[in-house]
Amino acid sequence: MSMSGTRPDGGGRERLVVIGGDAAGMSAASQARRLRDPDRLEIVAFERGHFTSFSACGIPYWVGGDVTDRDDLIARTPEEHRARDIDLRMRTEVTEIDVTGGRVRARDADSGAESWTSYDKLVIATGARPVRPELPGIDAPGVHGVQTLDDGQALLDTLAATKGRRAVVVGAGYIGVEMAEALLNRGYEVTVLNRGAEPMATLDPDMGRMVHDAMAGMGITMVNDAEVTEVLTGDDGRARAVVAGGTEYPADVVVLGIGVRPETALARAAGLPLGAHGGLLTDLAMRVRGYENIWAGGDCVEVLDLVSGSERHIALGTHANKQGQVIGTNAGGGYATFPGVVGTAVSKVCALEIARTGLREKDARRAGLRYVAVTIESSSRAGYYPGAAPMTVKMLAERRTGRLLGTQIVGREGAAKRVDVAAVALTAGMTVEQMTALDLGYAPPFSPVWDPVLVAARRATTAVREQGA
Amino acid sequence: MSMSGTRPDGGGRERLVVIGGDAAGMSAASQARRLRDPDRLEIVAFERGHFTSFSACGIPYWVGGDVTDRDDLIARTPEEHRARDIDLRMRTEVTEIDVTGGRVRARDADSGAESWTSYDKLVIATGARPVRPELPGIDAPGVHGVQTLDDGQALLDTLAATKGRRAVVVGAGYIGVEMAEALLNRGYEVTVLNRGAEPMATLDPDMGRMVHDAMAGMGITMVNDAEVTEVLTGDDGRARAVVAGGTEYPADVVVLGIGVRPETALARAAGLPLGAHGGLLTDLAMRVRGYENIWAGGDCVEVLDLVSGSERHIALGTHANKQGQVIGTNAGGGYATFPGVVGTAVSKVCALEIARTGLREKDARRAGLRYVAVTIESSSRAGYYPGAAPMTVKMLAERRTGRLLGTQIVGREGAAKRVDVAAVALTAGMTVEQMTALDLGYAPPFSPVWDPVLVAARRATTAVREQGA
Repeated sequence: MSMSGTRPDGGGRERLVVIGGDAAGMSAASQARRLRDPDRLEIVAFERGHFTSFSACGIPYWVGGDVTDRDDLIARTPEEHRARDIDLRMRTEVTEIDVTGGRVRARDADSGAESWTSYDKLVIATGARPVRPELPGIDAPGVHGVQTLDDGQALLDTLAATKGRRAVVVGAGYIGVEMAEALLNRGYEVTVLNRGAEPMATLDPDMGRMVHDAMAGMGITMVNDAEVTEVLTGDDGRARAVVAGGTEYPADVVVLGIGVRPETALARAAGLPLGAHGGLLTDLAMRVRGYENIWAGGDCVEVLDLVSGSERHIALGTHANKQGQVIGTNAGGGYATFPGVVGTAVSKVCALEIARTGLREKDARRAGLRYVAVTIESSSRAGYYPGAAPMTVKMLAERRTGRLLGTQIVGREGAAKRVDVAAVALTAGMTVEQMTALDLGYAPPFSPVWDPVLVAARRATTAVREQGA
Repeated sequence: MSMSGTRPDGGGRERLVVIGGDAAGMSAASQARRLRDPDRLEIVAFERGHFTSFSACGIPYWVGGDVTDRDDLIARTPEEHRARDIDLRMRTEVTEIDVTGGRVRARDADSGAESWTSYDKLVIATGARPVRPELPGIDAPGVHGVQTLDDGQALLDTLAATKGRRAVVVGAGYIGVEMAEALLNRGYEVTVLNRGAEPMATLDPDMGRMVHDAMAGMGITMVNDAEVTEVLTGDDGRARAVVAGGTEYPADVVVLGIGVRPETALARAAGLPLGAHGGLLTDLAMRVRGYENIWAGGDCVEVLDLVSGSERHIALGTHANKQGQVIGTNAGGGYATFPGVVGTAVSKVCALEIARTGLREKDARRAGLRYVAVTIESSSRAGYYPGAAPMTVKMLAERRTGRLLGTQIVGREGAAKRVDVAAVALTAGMTVEQMTALDLGYAPPFSPVWDPVLVAARRATTAVREQGA
């Protein structure tokens, strides 16, 4: 092991070290570079994989064929980063953070050589790792995660080499339902095995049931309450079936979409503070709590949920980019904060759009909130306008105060992004009654004269009033 | 003239009289009925036309062929209103309001008979009338407004009877551009004569220019700075050309889409307070200022613009419905307010979507505000996702405070309704920096990882900072 990259000995030049070359890490590096020239700030970034700044969210659409070229998912290549004076070390994994010594140890994946690099400022952006339950057969060929571009390529290779057309997706959250669409688009018979009572556990069960019915209507076999216990393999060692609840589901390919956990082994070993969900805890400037010169962002941190007042772990590229921007501003000598989230998420399965923001019923109960919940049916356009599609909006409001607590939408074209109205209203702390007066865009091709979100707000206002104290 | 419908002489039964049977009037009547049974509240509504509760906003799509059946534009028929115990008198025009006497005089259009009806509570919902400049030939056959269903039918009849395919649209606001699309869809060669420097004067000229170019790209002849002076007629007395700026534009059909003015002749004659735009002035509960038992709403009133702090006239069905709801609640013994608008409007011309909310540059100057303005280009979906369409977002923020003042969006699919995010942010008084942290829905089919509105907010934040004091 060598000691390289010691701090330059003069001129006030600092070194910023970034662990992780994806959205949060490279946004931070890029923003810091915008604010500080190379003669004042050296930036060294370590990435253990083959790619930088790629869109993991885009993988289902690449697998499904909507995106044909893998490289389209790469927002910025290593060469582009290097052209901006970022010393990017690819295929180099940080194996230890020495907080006291202000240095990180990294290993070159090809040579195995390790070396220490000192830092003045450190950014931890180690991302998340997919949940992969320890089950018999889970590592057999033909079982695929979809976290990285390498994962996506491996899955596409399997699909190309497989004659059978039966796909089993394990998990019915965002990744699971998006992969179900992708495989359906590829012509597979798709079975989704869902551990919960309804798919999309990020929705309330009554809204999840709508997703279930819509996906079943697309010809997807939806199995709920299906705890997977084993992946069966054939004589060739490849996955041939998934066992759940004692039933065998034949599979020519198996896709795991069970969710992710913060990748914080390094941070834990370094004694940095982790939260209840295993993510790093930061302050509002994205500094690791208690550490003046260490920031963390992206899928490895917990974020403040502004509605419940507690921390959550949400792996989402849009948060990672924003947090990276904030970190880069602060590490570059500026000032910025990431105030928290309201829990907005959107997705789709073929023509079905799914959206949520704020709290579900069980989140509200857990936060100690009493609420009313209403559900309304409306449409995406004026009823008489061609293409008007049905939309269901569920809205939660706090009892007595009438403050908006959450909104869930399931529908067709035009449903998902309507949740943004509720997301802004949540951020502003609006009541549902205040929302009824919102001046939203109206024209027959875009909305009924009462936007569906306003219809829900009206109903919720009435419910709050009727519920009384 | 007879005196009919005097107040019942006991039991505390009141009479609510409604002038105008469209969105605001009938929403008010319906809501009042929900809150008060017929034995406590009699409701009499006068409508001078043939229809109630129709969607004027839908007329362009009916003319264009997207909507095939006129009756689809009628939200509720006279019979449906009557079934809810509303005494609806069709083809009966109120010709005088006697405020002191608490009564209105109405004339039956067929018989010409007039009679007085007393009221305890009065709702004025007389709507707007289209601007129709006094020009030679303006009343010739072949020149059409598009304000009422009768207007729409007359235009469709003309189109059916006309062999020529040249249409001239006078005006390039919402109605003008929507009618240009409608006539294009019907196979006409369309010329739009616009008095202003750019179409869509509700946008800043730089954004209007984008609309101009897009419409020209659709094959529409766009003529700016075109002050119409005359409609030329042929030997048959029908319109054959429109003259503007000394140029003759041949026309087989002429459509006027010049805008509307509040229809407040009755209110003016009755001495009720009118504003600078000719609309009735109300308080926040939609009561006519200074009159405890008279409400007004819809296209005949002025509304408070929450961003500029001054009154505007905006003829839009969504406001009319909300105001009617508020009036009905108050007239029915409840309590509700209409706090004002932020000036949101959306429209489209074929695939081009156009949206605005808040103040334009000239509105900001007029309101005494100093501002920064930024314009960004982004796309409706992740760049790699099929169908990603370009979108231009212009954003105004107040200098020093950074408070959002306005947003304009021109783009393709997915552009228009994004303005709702800005509309809610305006209502909440957010700064553009606060907006950069908004938790908006992100998934590749719905948005880039930075939503276009957030990209604009970031740029505006930087501009505010750079502008300094």
